[in-house]
Amino acid sequence: MAHIKRTDPGAILSKAVEYHNFVYLQGVTAKDTTKDIKGQTADVLAQIDHLLEEHGTDKTQLLQALIWVRNIKDRDGMNEVWTPWLPKNGAPARACVQAELANPSILVEIMVTACK
Amino acid sequence: MAHIKRTDPGAILSKAVEYHNFVYLQGVTAKDTTKDIKGQTADVLAQIDHLLEEHGTDKTQLLQALIWVRNIKDRDGMNEVWTPWLPKNGAPARACVQAELANPSILVEIMVTACK
Amino acid sequence: MAHIKRTDPGAILSKAVEYHNFVYLQGVTAKDTTKDIKGQTADVLAQIDHLLEEHGTDKTQLLQALIWVRNIKDRDGMNEVWTPWLPKNGAPARACVQAELANPSILVEIMVTACK
Repeated sequence: MAHIKRTDPGAILSKAVEYHNFVYLQGVTAKDTTKDIKGQTADVLAQIDHLLEEHGTDKTQLLQALIWVRNIKDRDGMNEVWTPWLPKNGAPARACVQAELANPSILVEIMVTACK
Repeated sequence: MAHIKRTDPGAILSKAVEYHNFVYLQGVTAKDTTKDIKGQTADVLAQIDHLLEEHGTDKTQLLQALIWVRNIKDRDGMNEVWTPWLPKNGAPARACVQAELANPSILVEIMVTACK
Repeated sequence: MAHIKRTDPGAILSKAVEYHNFVYLQGVTAKDTTKDIKGQTADVLAQIDHLLEEHGTDKTQLLQALIWVRNIKDRDGMNEVWTPWLPKNGAPARACVQAELANPSILVEIMVTACK
């Protein structure tokens, strides 16, 4: 069986799972869900930076991103924070769709896969 | 071209696709959709166990899980079956969101990626 | 750090990202969203063919597909185009759920992962 490294394995998910130079992150939501869409997106991206760092990689190595917004009208606000965060010419393949999330105060959830 | 092994390739999907020690499973739904959320989740997880076994791996090797529930209020009921099924300290990276599924009797759909 | 090849890296996404014989495509939507579900699906699949070709692979190498339809009732119409497009015995692992997409004229979005 393959060697897998899990960060913070919990009852329902691990925050990150690494195998064979691939790093799969959980769908990250903001710690402070009183923030607006831009604030929540920044909160999420800071957590993603931290998780990637824990696995010896960073946002220049993003392969895929799945983004869910609670209201598709928040897509533009999310992008206003997402785009400057991305490395130049380093965007992942991405899909962004609307979905009701774990609770109504969560406006955005972002799940990325990276390599190292 | 790479060697790919597909389980039950059909008109719209294969139940599982294996490449280079990665195993991608279909989004699995319950065979018996008269069951409640806990029953459907157990039904789905039994199918996942079986598909992983067909590819020479098991739930200790989960990398990523995407979970859709028809009603986000069923997330807790799903988790009540999901958590005890997971190996200790072996949870995958995960996202769980609400979505309308192929038909209204389907309450949950789970798609996992594993390694071997 | 690993070598990654990105096709059309833009402000919010790359159309395709290749790493270590894995090719991750963006969630593709139709260029002409005045078309109906069958027309939009055909439009999307033609773009997917083109992107796979840019990365030296093709639809016989599909591993995983995530499909979002704006109205789950369009699943059958989408499948009418999806199924004949697939290589015989070559379907990917797949999930198809309903979601509101970037704008109301977009009826379907398809995101695939392939190998080469």
